[in-house]
Amino acid sequence: MPTVRLDLSYDGTDFRGYAKQPDVRTVQSELERALDHRFGPVETTVAGRTDAGVHARHQVVSFVVDTPVDLDAAQRSLNRLLPDDIVVTAIATAPDGFSARFSATRRQYRYVILNQRLPDPFLRRVSWHVADDLDAFAMNQAARLMVGEHDFASFCRKAQGRSTVRTVTSAKWTEPQAAELRFEIDGSSFCHQMVRSIVALCVDVGRGLVDVDDVGAIRDARDRNEARGAAPPHGLTLWHIEY
Amino acid sequence: MPTVRLDLSYDGTDFRGYAKQPDVRTVQSELERALDHRFGPVETTVAGRTDAGVHARHQVVSFVVDTPVDLDAAQRSLNRLLPDDIVVTAIATAPDGFSARFSATRRQYRYVILNQRLPDPFLRRVSWHVADDLDAFAMNQAARLMVGEHDFASFCRKAQGRSTVRTVTSAKWTEPQAAELRFEIDGSSFCHQMVRSIVALCVDVGRGLVDVDDVGAIRDARDRNEARGAAPPHGLTLWHIEY
Repeated sequence: MPTVRLDLSYDGTDFRGYAKQPDVRTVQSELERALDHRFGPVETTVAGRTDAGVHARHQVVSFVVDTPVDLDAAQRSLNRLLPDDIVVTAIATAPDGFSARFSATRRQYRYVILNQRLPDPFLRRVSWHVADDLDAFAMNQAARLMVGEHDFASFCRKAQGRSTVRTVTSAKWTEPQAAELRFEIDGSSFCHQMVRSIVALCVDVGRGLVDVDDVGAIRDARDRNEARGAAPPHGLTLWHIEY
Repeated sequence: MPTVRLDLSYDGTDFRGYAKQPDVRTVQSELERALDHRFGPVETTVAGRTDAGVHARHQVVSFVVDTPVDLDAAQRSLNRLLPDDIVVTAIATAPDGFSARFSATRRQYRYVILNQRLPDPFLRRVSWHVADDLDAFAMNQAARLMVGEHDFASFCRKAQGRSTVRTVTSAKWTEPQAAELRFEIDGSSFCHQMVRSIVALCVDVGRGLVDVDDVGAIRDARDRNEARGAAPPHGLTLWHIEY
């Protein structure tokens, strides 16, 4: 019973998120349709569910099949079966018991802000256009306050009875090129809307609407009403999963 | 009667080209709808018509209005009125008699090829994915043969009775980053499908399907059947117009 690991890349623009839902186009439904064609019905596990409009440079899915797999041939055939906004970038046999979700030790997300007066039609699907002046230094101070183990309830869409305690190992804003502000955040896992909610708070700090001295208290309030909503999904990309 | 010059940027993915046509979404029809809203009906002239799927980083349009224009306010209002795949990047009053088309002295196009085994979902709208090995040195030799004044009839979709003699001032392939091959071509003007037809020939040279020693003869045959078709539109971008 081999366990197969698929590494995927997808443009989230035209998906209603990763997870299967009735009557809408999702990454999981397109992927399972292709897997079913190649392997028959399989049950998949995913490293990080992404919301509607969120992208993945690196997503990992695992599933168990009952016969040995010709990996190269399977990758070619899946890429033929999948629509062109999903690509299987790698395929491998994983150790017994491997789970794309539970075996992951680290997840990295990136969020891109286009910070200039005018929007850019070529970046509109992969960045959030913010025309206001942003104080990147203050945004980095806010980001730093997210590092460590905290109860991130202020930044999470509640899942009844689930813990919102998470450990963030790093969080920083960089300016890789003129007019681009990029947020990189790493942790073992993230709760729902956590990254986009942290981005929204950082941006309000950058705009001068929230004082960086209040960020610690907002974080510790464990109250979603204390936060500043969520940044738009299309700026967010699941960047890398480590095992 | 001020002449107004608009500089535009647009993502060509969702347009059936620049030029107005009945019942389809084109850049010109969206632009003229916005201009009509702001200025009343105007007649526009464009620097370079682009085909369906072709992009523009820099396109220029001119038109005459009968009253003075508050340029900043007009730019803001046009960008509000236009869909988010077209942006007015600059607006200015031009000298009397200025024509976006006839006053242009130089046009630059770029064509991007993603040359790696796997496609990339994030580049699929702005590049042509070619998985075969390509000989960039030979492609550059072919490109160099396009420089100068020639009758480019082999590379042009014929417009009855129109000259296909053009002067190309430079044409080269570069490799700005791993797996990317970029074609840059400059000239005073180009006939219909000329750039994409030259790209298709260069790629067949790069694949070893056409010998670079035959490129001069293909160019001089003045026969569209001698060429190698046209590269897909979505890899092409009108890059810059000079006046």
